[in-house]
Amino acid sequence: MGVEKSVAVVGLGSMGRALAGAFVRAGFPTTVWNRTPGKAARLVAEGAVRVDSVEEAVAAGSVVVVCVADHDVVRGLLRPVGGGLDGKLLVNLTSATSVEMREVAGVAGVDGYLAGAIMGMPQDIGTAGSSVLYSGPRSAFEAHEEVLRVLGEPVHLGADHGLSSLYAGAGVSLMWSVLNGFLHGAALLGAAGAGASAFVPFARRSIATAAGWLAGYADQVDEGAYPGVDATIASHLTAMEYLVRESEASGVNAELPRFIAGLAERAVAGGRGGDGYAAMIELFRTPSGPPGRATG
Amino acid sequence: MGVEKSVAVVGLGSMGRALAGAFVRAGFPTTVWNRTPGKAARLVAEGAVRVDSVEEAVAAGSVVVVCVADHDVVRGLLRPVGGGLDGKLLVNLTSATSVEMREVAGVAGVDGYLAGAIMGMPQDIGTAGSSVLYSGPRSAFEAHEEVLRVLGEPVHLGADHGLSSLYAGAGVSLMWSVLNGFLHGAALLGAAGAGASAFVPFARRSIATAAGWLAGYADQVDEGAYPGVDATIASHLTAMEYLVRESEASGVNAELPRFIAGLAERAVAGGRGGDGYAAMIELFRTPSGPPGRATG
Ligand SMILES: NC(=O)c1ccc[n+]([C@@H]2O[C@H](COP(=O)([O-])OP(=O)(O)OC[C@H]3O[C@@H](n4cnc5c(N)ncnc54)[C@H](OP(=O)(O)O)[C@@H]3O)[C@@H](O)[C@H]2O)c1
Ligand SMILES: NC(=O)c1ccc[n+]([C@@H]2O[C@H](COP(=O)([O-])OP(=O)(O)OC[C@H]3O[C@@H](n4cnc5c(N)ncnc54)[C@H](OP(=O)(O)O)[C@@H]3O)[C@@H](O)[C@H]2O)c1
Repeated sequence: MGVEKSVAVVGLGSMGRALAGAFVRAGFPTTVWNRTPGKAARLVAEGAVRVDSVEEAVAAGSVVVVCVADHDVVRGLLRPVGGGLDGKLLVNLTSATSVEMREVAGVAGVDGYLAGAIMGMPQDIGTAGSSVLYSGPRSAFEAHEEVLRVLGEPVHLGADHGLSSLYAGAGVSLMWSVLNGFLHGAALLGAAGAGASAFVPFARRSIATAAGWLAGYADQVDEGAYPGVDATIASHLTAMEYLVRESEASGVNAELPRFIAGLAERAVAGGRGGDGYAAMIELFRTPSGPPGRATG
Repeated sequence: MGVEKSVAVVGLGSMGRALAGAFVRAGFPTTVWNRTPGKAARLVAEGAVRVDSVEEAVAAGSVVVVCVADHDVVRGLLRPVGGGLDGKLLVNLTSATSVEMREVAGVAGVDGYLAGAIMGMPQDIGTAGSSVLYSGPRSAFEAHEEVLRVLGEPVHLGADHGLSSLYAGAGVSLMWSVLNGFLHGAALLGAAGAGASAFVPFARRSIATAAGWLAGYADQVDEGAYPGVDATIASHLTAMEYLVRESEASGVNAELPRFIAGLAERAVAGGRGGDGYAAMIELFRTPSGPPGRATG
């Protein structure tokens, strides 16, 4: 075993307190700082050491975890720290865009910095239900994996510090897509008097069917060729238009199918009607106009 | 064993030919009709009998399967048939809205009619990969289940003839939701140089996580109470706004997250910010304005 690692946690909101608590319970010397000092009381009772400045916290930990409200707060707190991070690992678990996550490497140095995204809620931290995505140098990840494992299953995604935000965003986006698709379907069935619970098994099968197609579609995306081996975008569009009519006829909200059909319609208009659905990647890659404009 | 059943198939497009072919291969006496008679040639060679009118086809089959382009064609073909369907089972496998499917009961009679929706493609018919959803009287379904099983796993959804269309629509809607969420995520990761294939395992885990929440959300929908036990709609909205910024900052299309955030924003504006995500059902139930309007 090497030198014992010590941890500092900067930010004791509901997530920061959960992180610090997990480190304390795992037996790591844990130093904490928060703008509102009172939030440290319970952690101190459990064995954490509270300090009065971010600089002191950074000095005390070989691993410095930052989890505050947003990137602007991170920027403000780290600015005065400067070289204090030399030889340490900074782990930024604050939600931010990939661009913001990369920006922090300018303060912490590329090698001593991991960006992270927590896939779970405070009550999940330290349980099997929690997983944390990390991006940054693999060497930094591997050197501190045992510490990171305290918070939940640590997953390393790659060297680009933006990847954890991008994966996290892509993952929750899929979750909202699933939930919205389910709720729209439940509304449709509800209009015919069917309960949402009765829809669950069929919905889960439909979701699993689509999930089963992803590897094939991903290959097409990576190869840049989208043969319409089964259904083409044009035939999907016909079925989407049915769903729009169905939603309208059933008196439920038709915005979701209209949105879906609108995307496919543009792909068809752009000459992709004969391709498979994976060709829609080109539309998703095309920057959209400013907010409020419906089309890109 | 009861009397041997005979089958008639009206409509020999690519799907109708697959249906008739499956019946012929399963050994059922099969009579076929199509507007363009030449499409029956191969089926006749395999043992089907081609007739020159819908009336003759209906007279020849104890089970009459109709699978044509759309509901207007169904309406036109069945109008002259009238009482010819007495004592028979009409199975309408033409894609149509729930309202249109119910309308056919006016011609065929409620008891002798099943509406259906094929969950698969012509090449799947008669294989383990095919399932067909049926709605209409359970007695009619049970009396003919052995015949229906020839086409694929038969699933009976309930007595309302609209249910098969509604379930089918809700199911494919979920599939498009999954595919769009995946492709948007792949575009985001692609902007950082990551391949779509690398995203697949994580995407499937995210999808499975969301699918695991559906039973709980369905209970809330059926009970009409949406406690925000984990995240509230307001906290989802904050995360959605991150994803909008992330998409914009990454230079990919931001319409999908903007659409998702727009729905949540309206739920929050409508006083649902403190509720769990299942409360979004109220928005999905609210009829949207005419096409082209962004909001309901
Ligand atoms: N909670 C979750 O379920 C969850 C899940 C995944 C990711 N996250 C992410 O984790 C981060 C923290 O979330 P949270 O739930 O802990 O938020 P929170 O409970 O609202 O806590 C916010 C933290 O930021 C600090 N802060 C805000 N403005 C500050 C300023 N100007 N200067 C110094 N400190 C400031 C707060 O200090 P005070 O105590 O002094 O106000 C507090 O420590 C966020 O980026 C969030 O997106 C949260
Ligand atoms: N193919 C699939 O993957 C699939 C999957 C699920 C559900 N479906 C549904 O199955 C139904 C048939 O699809 P399909 O793929 O077989 O379509 P298709 O190949 O285009 O065939 C259309 C059929 O409708 C007939 N028809 C069209 N207009 C007519 C008219 N005015 N009078 C009489 N007959 C007319 C055609 O006759 P002619 O041969 O004389 O043109 C042909 O038999 C559609 O509702 C479709 O949505 C298809």
